[in-house]
Amino acid sequence: MDWTIAIRDARDRIAAHVVQTPIAALDINGMRVEIKMEHLQHTGSFKARGAFNTLLSGPVPEAGIVAASGGNHGAAVAFAARKLGLAAHVFVPKIAGPAKIELIRATGANLTVVEGEYASALEQARRFEESTGACQVHAYDAPATVAGQGTVLCEWEDQGLDADTILIAVGGGGLIGGALRWLTGRRKVVAVEPQMAPTLHAAREAGGPVDVDVGGIAANALGAKRIGSICYAAARDHGVECVLVTEAAIAEAQEWLWRNAHQLVEPAGATALAALLSGAYVPAAGERVAVLICGANVAPDPFAKGPG
Amino acid sequence: MDWTIAIRDARDRIAAHVVQTPIAALDINGMRVEIKMEHLQHTGSFKARGAFNTLLSGPVPEAGIVAASGGNHGAAVAFAARKLGLAAHVFVPKIAGPAKIELIRATGANLTVVEGEYASALEQARRFEESTGACQVHAYDAPATVAGQGTVLCEWEDQGLDADTILIAVGGGGLIGGALRWLTGRRKVVAVEPQMAPTLHAAREAGGPVDVDVGGIAANALGAKRIGSICYAAARDHGVECVLVTEAAIAEAQEWLWRNAHQLVEPAGATALAALLSGAYVPAAGERVAVLICGANVAPDPFAKGPG
Repeated sequence: MDWTIAIRDARDRIAAHVVQTPIAALDINGMRVEIKMEHLQHTGSFKARGAFNTLLSGPVPEAGIVAASGGNHGAAVAFAARKLGLAAHVFVPKIAGPAKIELIRATGANLTVVEGEYASALEQARRFEESTGACQVHAYDAPATVAGQGTVLCEWEDQGLDADTILIAVGGGGLIGGALRWLTGRRKVVAVEPQMAPTLHAAREAGGPVDVDVGGIAANALGAKRIGSICYAAARDHGVECVLVTEAAIAEAQEWLWRNAHQLVEPAGATALAALLSGAYVPAAGERVAVLICGANVAPDPFAKGPG
Repeated sequence: MDWTIAIRDARDRIAAHVVQTPIAALDINGMRVEIKMEHLQHTGSFKARGAFNTLLSGPVPEAGIVAASGGNHGAAVAFAARKLGLAAHVFVPKIAGPAKIELIRATGANLTVVEGEYASALEQARRFEESTGACQVHAYDAPATVAGQGTVLCEWEDQGLDADTILIAVGGGGLIGGALRWLTGRRKVVAVEPQMAPTLHAAREAGGPVDVDVGGIAANALGAKRIGSICYAAARDHGVECVLVTEAAIAEAQEWLWRNAHQLVEPAGATALAALLSGAYVPAAGERVAVLICGANVAPDPFAKGPG
């Protein structure tokens, strides 16, 4: 598979449907850090790119689309389906939280909130797929998804990305997998994972993708139990440095981003930044660094109604 | 006074100290609306531009700087003073609210929280000025302030502003005054005021600036009692269309901006957008419209500690 062509094609395919997200720069202790504000994408995360690329890549069965998701992917699939006039059914576990669940509901998608964890939602989504013939859109380990997410880096370079090194948060690896395939080693990529959800870290230690226990404040976005095989291969082919960040570092990065850049993001959206602020990743002298901010669906939602 | 030269000079003077704020586009019922995200300026509002321009325009007395402010101007002056190594004393009324007061405190400025209203803070700031010889930085009705705020439009045009019409919120008129002086009628400007703080509206009805009663949810940012004379003259020279928006329209625009663009802004920051969303301003067919988003210091702060 020629990823460069796949990502360029994805860019052209989805161009009319996604936001060209803004770029900006932060001052972190006197160091200029480029950021891409991909949390301003439709439905609040980069996931809209992979969703549109998948739905636009081939014929969709009459039964429509089905997806299981910690929240962001489900919202993106539901949004894309509505925009394209397709039926969508999304299965989410309760831990997605009210903000993400409400976001999916607002798209008009059929929504099933599942007791238990993400695995239960995926199980129900698979049964739905089998019984209806709906097309399952995988959250991170399908080529069309990864090529869609790779358009973030393609777009960022078109906008004048300057950095030597880009820090990217990792859950199942769809975003960083696409980034690695687009960059093909032209720039250094640092994979940032919560200590409580170290899927890529564990895979590299074990010599291949393995299940890990996941939890923590970013689990409803970075809570895949196992790194995707596409991401794992991309990391092997192009090289990546892995760093882990603590729960406290993620929460501090969230607050830092609000205090210093007035961006309110979810824990996963601040995870890459946390590596820089906490010193989990220390750039070399003169190294120009960029951080991908990737998710905005914070809980509680600041406009949530009712008590709390 | 040649405003074009004053604003260009201001741009060059403050360039190293302010954020070149991002631009983006919103989709409002299928209409593309350009926005400038000036709420991402240092200290969360455009006020940093006027503050830096003032402090960099002339010698500052040893006694330093004094300002009275509903909050945003005070934070900007305190921030600029610290960056330039100057002493600052800021007087704010309690209605500025804890988020803005904490923001000023965090800069290290000397801060006096004044019982009563903005007028009491201004009174105390003037006494401080008289007794110490400190330089008073006016929030909106001084040429260096207005020229600084005018750099927002200058920068936006450099970034490729396309719109025929720009909607701008009005309090004392520093921001829109600078915009009008930069644009000199090249594009239409719509002045948006809360019904509960209609300073420009009242001035145009009375044939000159008059005191009005001010209140409502945007009062800690748009709560000047009387439009500035510089703004009034600019509106007279270049023309402006005035519209009023309700409290509900402002609150709805705040929530709309969060739901649709993941930007959390204060009521004043959403006031210009409210005119478009509520239909207080209806563009003509084909009219290309832009909205200036100008303040992010929302209350309660989403990371506020303690109960509530």
